[in-house]
Amino acid sequence: MAERYADRQLKLFSLTSNPKIAEKIAEAAGVPLGRLTSRQFSDGEIMINIEETVRGDDIYIIQSTSYPVNDHLWELLIMVDACKRASANSVNVVIPYFGYSRQDRIAASREPITAKLVANMLVKAGADRVLTLDLHTVQVQGFFDTPVDNLFTIPLFADYYYNLGLVGDEVVVVSPKNSGIKRARSLAEYLDAPIAIIDYAQDDAAREEGYIIGEVAGKKAILIDDILNTGKTLAEAAKILERGGATAIYAAASHGLFAGGAADILAAAPIKEILVTDSVSTKEPVPENVNYLSASRLIADAIIRIHERKPVSPLFAYTPKD
Amino acid sequence: MAERYADRQLKLFSLTSNPKIAEKIAEAAGVPLGRLTSRQFSDGEIMINIEETVRGDDIYIIQSTSYPVNDHLWELLIMVDACKRASANSVNVVIPYFGYSRQDRIAASREPITAKLVANMLVKAGADRVLTLDLHTVQVQGFFDTPVDNLFTIPLFADYYYNLGLVGDEVVVVSPKNSGIKRARSLAEYLDAPIAIIDYAQDDAAREEGYIIGEVAGKKAILIDDILNTGKTLAEAAKILERGGATAIYAAASHGLFAGGAADILAAAPIKEILVTDSVSTKEPVPENVNYLSASRLIADAIIRIHERKPVSPLFAYTPKD
Amino acid sequence: MAERYADRQLKLFSLTSNPKIAEKIAEAAGVPLGRLTSRQFSDGEIMINIEETVRGDDIYIIQSTSYPVNDHLWELLIMVDACKRASANSVNVVIPYFGYSRQDRIAASREPITAKLVANMLVKAGADRVLTLDLHTVQVQGFFDTPVDNLFTIPLFADYYYNLGLVGDEVVVVSPKNSGIKRARSLAEYLDAPIAIIDYAQDDAAREEGYIIGEVAGKKAILIDDILNTGKTLAEAAKILERGGATAIYAAASHGLFAGGAADILAAAPIKEILVTDSVSTKEPVPENVNYLSASRLIADAIIRIHERKPVSPLFAYTPKD
Amino acid sequence: MAERYADRQLKLFSLTSNPKIAEKIAEAAGVPLGRLTSRQFSDGEIMINIEETVRGDDIYIIQSTSYPVNDHLWELLIMVDACKRASANSVNVVIPYFGYSRQDRIAASREPITAKLVANMLVKAGADRVLTLDLHTVQVQGFFDTPVDNLFTIPLFADYYYNLGLVGDEVVVVSPKNSGIKRARSLAEYLDAPIAIIDYAQDDAAREEGYIIGEVAGKKAILIDDILNTGKTLAEAAKILERGGATAIYAAASHGLFAGGAADILAAAPIKEILVTDSVSTKEPVPENVNYLSASRLIADAIIRIHERKPVSPLFAYTPKD
Amino acid sequence: MAERYADRQLKLFSLTSNPKIAEKIAEAAGVPLGRLTSRQFSDGEIMINIEETVRGDDIYIIQSTSYPVNDHLWELLIMVDACKRASANSVNVVIPYFGYSRQDRIAASREPITAKLVANMLVKAGADRVLTLDLHTVQVQGFFDTPVDNLFTIPLFADYYYNLGLVGDEVVVVSPKNSGIKRARSLAEYLDAPIAIIDYAQDDAAREEGYIIGEVAGKKAILIDDILNTGKTLAEAAKILERGGATAIYAAASHGLFAGGAADILAAAPIKEILVTDSVSTKEPVPENVNYLSASRLIADAIIRIHERKPVSPLFAYTPKD
Amino acid sequence: MAERYADRQLKLFSLTSNPKIAEKIAEAAGVPLGRLTSRQFSDGEIMINIEETVRGDDIYIIQSTSYPVNDHLWELLIMVDACKRASANSVNVVIPYFGYSRQDRIAASREPITAKLVANMLVKAGADRVLTLDLHTVQVQGFFDTPVDNLFTIPLFADYYYNLGLVGDEVVVVSPKNSGIKRARSLAEYLDAPIAIIDYAQDDAAREEGYIIGEVAGKKAILIDDILNTGKTLAEAAKILERGGATAIYAAASHGLFAGGAADILAAAPIKEILVTDSVSTKEPVPENVNYLSASRLIADAIIRIHERKPVSPLFAYTPKD
Repeated sequence: MAERYADRQLKLFSLTSNPKIAEKIAEAAGVPLGRLTSRQFSDGEIMINIEETVRGDDIYIIQSTSYPVNDHLWELLIMVDACKRASANSVNVVIPYFGYSRQDRIAASREPITAKLVANMLVKAGADRVLTLDLHTVQVQGFFDTPVDNLFTIPLFADYYYNLGLVGDEVVVVSPKNSGIKRARSLAEYLDAPIAIIDYAQDDAAREEGYIIGEVAGKKAILIDDILNTGKTLAEAAKILERGGATAIYAAASHGLFAGGAADILAAAPIKEILVTDSVSTKEPVPENVNYLSASRLIADAIIRIHERKPVSPLFAYTPKD
Repeated sequence: MAERYADRQLKLFSLTSNPKIAEKIAEAAGVPLGRLTSRQFSDGEIMINIEETVRGDDIYIIQSTSYPVNDHLWELLIMVDACKRASANSVNVVIPYFGYSRQDRIAASREPITAKLVANMLVKAGADRVLTLDLHTVQVQGFFDTPVDNLFTIPLFADYYYNLGLVGDEVVVVSPKNSGIKRARSLAEYLDAPIAIIDYAQDDAAREEGYIIGEVAGKKAILIDDILNTGKTLAEAAKILERGGATAIYAAASHGLFAGGAADILAAAPIKEILVTDSVSTKEPVPENVNYLSASRLIADAIIRIHERKPVSPLFAYTPKD
Repeated sequence: MAERYADRQLKLFSLTSNPKIAEKIAEAAGVPLGRLTSRQFSDGEIMINIEETVRGDDIYIIQSTSYPVNDHLWELLIMVDACKRASANSVNVVIPYFGYSRQDRIAASREPITAKLVANMLVKAGADRVLTLDLHTVQVQGFFDTPVDNLFTIPLFADYYYNLGLVGDEVVVVSPKNSGIKRARSLAEYLDAPIAIIDYAQDDAAREEGYIIGEVAGKKAILIDDILNTGKTLAEAAKILERGGATAIYAAASHGLFAGGAADILAAAPIKEILVTDSVSTKEPVPENVNYLSASRLIADAIIRIHERKPVSPLFAYTPKD
Repeated sequence: MAERYADRQLKLFSLTSNPKIAEKIAEAAGVPLGRLTSRQFSDGEIMINIEETVRGDDIYIIQSTSYPVNDHLWELLIMVDACKRASANSVNVVIPYFGYSRQDRIAASREPITAKLVANMLVKAGADRVLTLDLHTVQVQGFFDTPVDNLFTIPLFADYYYNLGLVGDEVVVVSPKNSGIKRARSLAEYLDAPIAIIDYAQDDAAREEGYIIGEVAGKKAILIDDILNTGKTLAEAAKILERGGATAIYAAASHGLFAGGAADILAAAPIKEILVTDSVSTKEPVPENVNYLSASRLIADAIIRIHERKPVSPLFAYTPKD
Repeated sequence: MAERYADRQLKLFSLTSNPKIAEKIAEAAGVPLGRLTSRQFSDGEIMINIEETVRGDDIYIIQSTSYPVNDHLWELLIMVDACKRASANSVNVVIPYFGYSRQDRIAASREPITAKLVANMLVKAGADRVLTLDLHTVQVQGFFDTPVDNLFTIPLFADYYYNLGLVGDEVVVVSPKNSGIKRARSLAEYLDAPIAIIDYAQDDAAREEGYIIGEVAGKKAILIDDILNTGKTLAEAAKILERGGATAIYAAASHGLFAGGAADILAAAPIKEILVTDSVSTKEPVPENVNYLSASRLIADAIIRIHERKPVSPLFAYTPKD
Repeated sequence: MAERYADRQLKLFSLTSNPKIAEKIAEAAGVPLGRLTSRQFSDGEIMINIEETVRGDDIYIIQSTSYPVNDHLWELLIMVDACKRASANSVNVVIPYFGYSRQDRIAASREPITAKLVANMLVKAGADRVLTLDLHTVQVQGFFDTPVDNLFTIPLFADYYYNLGLVGDEVVVVSPKNSGIKRARSLAEYLDAPIAIIDYAQDDAAREEGYIIGEVAGKKAILIDDILNTGKTLAEAAKILERGGATAIYAAASHGLFAGGAADILAAAPIKEILVTDSVSTKEPVPENVNYLSASRLIADAIIRIHERKPVSPLFAYTPKD
């Protein structure tokens, strides 16, 4: 473990959704996880007991709001309430995976904007700040009036592919759908590669066969997305790329949910390797070719910088190591 | 069905926790349930689509926040958000069973007050009014600054027992624990009967054998509580009353959760009949001697009175029918 | 006086309702009371002048909201406003007796919830934290979203009776009405004694003769309540206990208002000694057998702990001294 | 009484500070006062019971916040809370005399701005609108973000003096202090008369002998102020005017508090007649030469116009009757 | 003019940014524009006088927040404030062009999110609802918690091109940059055409020569964007398309700002026709080949539907007329 | 420059309205101005980039909201938003000239209260404190609930005139209109001189010839106002005073806007010297006889005192130097 961080007023707590990343963050930061118990009763209600003082402390609560998202969100809100009533100096929520982030707009009449609802609930409960990782759309930052530090995963992926030699014109970075091109554009710049897009004439619900916009034949393709849920989008895109003449297909996603049989769907697709961060801890089976990059060091550095009132911006920079 | 209610600006919607009571309320009110779909995706996220216009309408959303309470709460919050963004004139939440209501105080250091958190979340999401049934503690009304109409179940129970002839000095109304005496006191007044209390020297977590405060020998005892969860409290109280010489033991509770093996626990207790309202729809097994009284007419009457700007107070009165 | 507390950023101010307890708290804390003048003009308006800087300081304002409660509440709100506008770092209100706390629910149609209103007014005026003593109902803590530290008086009383030898089965702790049993239960646990209750068939306004639930004959009875207002409840309970065979009757209440001729009413009742804290300073006559226990040390300790960001929870523990 | 106003959704309630003006307003509006009881207990706490339904109604609560101002303010806040919780459609507070309005600025370091505090408390309690009469400073309207209708008394006074023949150059309208000149200016315009000012070299607390700025010798002087509290300001001004050669001295004030021995002070001053509105009902003795003009018709007209969504501005116009 | 709309409680007001569209909306709705004066003083301050009553009315204020955006925003905020204080029943802001909408995220460290700031300012000033046209990003709807009706321009454009015969595989809809593809996708679906994208290896500030992703050779290309500011993006894209072999190039944008010499820049580009709506009224020169489609009927229909509590969703549908 | 202030957590930033006073404040405080760029695009939108970290810092933003007031206000609001999102510890706005402050009341039906609107916008954007100079009316302080430090200019002017020998009965301090007398009164006290007033029978819009209330013949007159806009008020007052026999006429105003041809208007008036502070930086021509007194030292002292949690009140005191 890193040396014990000196300022005892900084406290980290892990809730139940992703204790693995919490432990890694704690280790990287040199701050042991605080003691608490979180129980769920037979009627489904969650009860939290914080087992050490938080009075006057700066609290960082680590919780990915992944499956089961509603339980994890309530657990987080309840913990925020408990900290605030127990006179914490500040309550910072660290949400490596921000659930409901795709419900960020009214796509059809009378839809909710659940991502904004989540933001409002967190703030009303008492959260003073949010630290998160690769939000689905950057506009979600504006759903908050409190500070939101949104860390980027693209430099992590770029570094990995760079070290694999996946750079230059023989590579193409592909967005598996016609939104999210900015993410492909960003990775392409790091790798000095062109981009392409998989487009569908109809949108997701009832989409027809997709087609490629751009050049992929004879290139190594890297599919990049933010959320890997059932894996269907990546699997279909990989098949289209294969038919389009891509010579090898890699896939990267910031958040690996692997819900609804993703392991089987992805195993059947022509993908060489799937790269995700450890933002989500899932009990679902994952494909054999998954490779986890840990975001824990990045998050730990951000927590320490925030606590020490230092700029977080240096964490956004990326310089390929020669 | 009752005659179709004339004012089409009043709309009822049922979410997924208790469609049975929603249908009965709709029938009693003469207002058909509005069309919506509520789906839960493979990653646990809930998506609601309201399938008819709500613009300018007064919406009543029926949802008990029973097991799984966190899903049911989020479904409710999301629906409130959707209605508000779709320009509903008012959003009224009808919560026959109000989950988390027992977390209404800080019982030990650094505990949350989750019932207040729930209140804050509902109001922040956009709820203009709450209509509920027999809140665990009446102070929870004060957790809101918006109007809360808290309907009482005691008159329903009193009417039932009165018709069974359970009145007067041969009956004793018993509170199964040393809180909630007001509820026993209220039923006792309707039945013109004395009260007694089951007390424990230590509180719930690790409680010792209880004892009776008051006179029960030779009397028919009616145990009254608000929430029947695992049934342990009622079962233990019934055994103590039997040992104390009660000649017959009835039990009534406003909300029947029947969690954690309640059916078996209660089947083993000397209880003649268990009376609950239909505020909660459970998939758990229920004891054979359960009798459901429907609160749907009471709730429907309240909705119509609220919509017509008539006082709700007449619904609180109770006159035994001769 | 205790040694002068080193941190000059902590400032105590006393308003006019209970300068005696304020002075004792100041002495116990080692923090002299700040200089201010509070005048009431011929038209009833209160004007406060703070006569030393509060800029950047942590202010603790000591004010019981006892008779005349409306004046004392406005004086408190005005002081909070003045401190906030004068750039205090934090404004903490110390309310040994929290007036209007019994109006904590809607007991009849169209009643206000004045305790919630008071909470809202304090927070809107700018209070950051409340420190109080034995709230009438613990749910009032949930009326606030800011931290509320609610200190308990039962350990003070328990310690006193323990030293008098009032322990074990020869003692019975009695709740003088059918609410507030938790308070009796708590004292009983400290004293290892059983409990009993005085019940009335109708509620307070027009209540009939009460009767005892539980065993009191041949025992020393300790009546315990939170607010001693006119003394009628305790006096009636004492008479009922005497008729019920109690051998000696003690009475304890956290807050001694002694309004409306309480001295005479209590003098005529068979009560051996009345124990109250000094939370309220009254100009009314008090009975001769009143004994005041000071809560000033408890409050001073809490203030210092809050200021030093130490947990307040150790103050809730109680260990009888051998 | 005026014909019964047809719309029963408009309800007037009078609290206890000025039932006389409330009855006159009710009569002028054709709306009977609603039923309520407001009691003050022996411990000073106020309890309000609204004895008829207010659900969905537009409520106008009439309460001058005169002596005892703190009681009257709390009574008003409590009533607002009760109406809101009882589902009133709108809660409008009618405050003929707005207490604490002179504390509208920070005159010395660390003073409160109590008039703003009062505004905040009213809005937070749930007041949707304020209807008041001649605010001390018009900027107080900006202390609210809700609509404030501030009715003017100057036309009432102008009409009265016009009928007495007090018009033109033989009259001078005098401000008794160097603030409030706008009020004198306004009356002077109605009466086609010049103005003068009584100035003091030091401000109110320790003021020296005042002197006249302007011409008064040989003229009939009308002193005009908004609040007549102890009468000292008017009495001193009258003496100065007499010495300055004014031939007759009249005094008018919107709000007659008559606190602190005002009757004696004013009786000793060379004032021919004192004109006030009935905005304040006082138990203090009043001078014999006081003449009350009722503002009830003006207020009643405003209430009806507000309720009927008609502009209130016509009430501000004044045309002398030929 | 359309027949006079019957309900006089609906009032339209135009501020100064785009009186032309306001007049057309008024005519289409059958509601004359309300009377007001808006002056700007020599010190730059704006003063608004509303010259007819708005008490109890539903107000729709029409103002595009185009150049000079800061003046137009303050004029709008001041008008909202005036309406609210004058007791309007609801204040609806109709913003055909929503300025600052591109500042919707933090693109570099320590940037503001001005679009959210604008949303917060409008709501805090008192706006109850926003009606706007083709927001830059749909997530901006979530910056508000009040209802936002975001009308679409794509059906207007689709109808126009459909009538020109620009349908099917001989046409390609092109996004002139790698964001905003959803807009191209939507128009393409209406016209049954494929899409293409102009991509740049670096982002806007210092962008290099762009290139085409997709097939355009031999096709008629329709460039589609939301905001036409200086015209550089469209002009560059047109040149790239021309080099790429497009046979004819059309351009459409929802909002035509034509700032910074746009007329010259566009005149030099190989664009056959530029289509914009009349959401913005500019004093800048516009290119000769501009064609304005009016959005006034669409907006007028939306206002009437909102006022009549009818769904707005039918306005989103589009059926090509045979 | 003063010695570099030690605490680097205090940061000053200047926006674009008055960089001259910002530089002087920075020099006086010993705190260099922070780095930022503020650009205005061709469509009028302002974009701010803060070019150094502000995380955890106490930020003071210096911006007079003078002409063009709407641009300067938005620039200020945008900067506040950026600082808050970038995790500044506190955001303090330093507004030497507070624009829109004259719109502080509803002077005619349906007017806005724009000064309150400005206050609400600043607070909602995130300003924690306001530091300003000689507010038009002191009640504007009450438009905020956050601390407002309102520095006075009268001592600066008093000191200047005192040194010129303008003291005692041979001097008269004159308010050029019938409001603002308090300001004349205050300067008169410093100079031990009487006061006089210029009154107009009608108010500003269509005012007739004014006349003097008080004695000026044979005296040196000092006209004092807060805002010098077009100079008409002072010019007219000076002519009236000259006709009234004043032997020399000086004019002082806190804020010199010099809008709308003020230089010419004032040059034609019999004013010996015009004294203003440097609160406003104007591009308009100014009269030759203008003398600027810098308020920068006063503001710098206030900033340092606020940051060091010392009282600001000593800055309000003034002792003439012998």
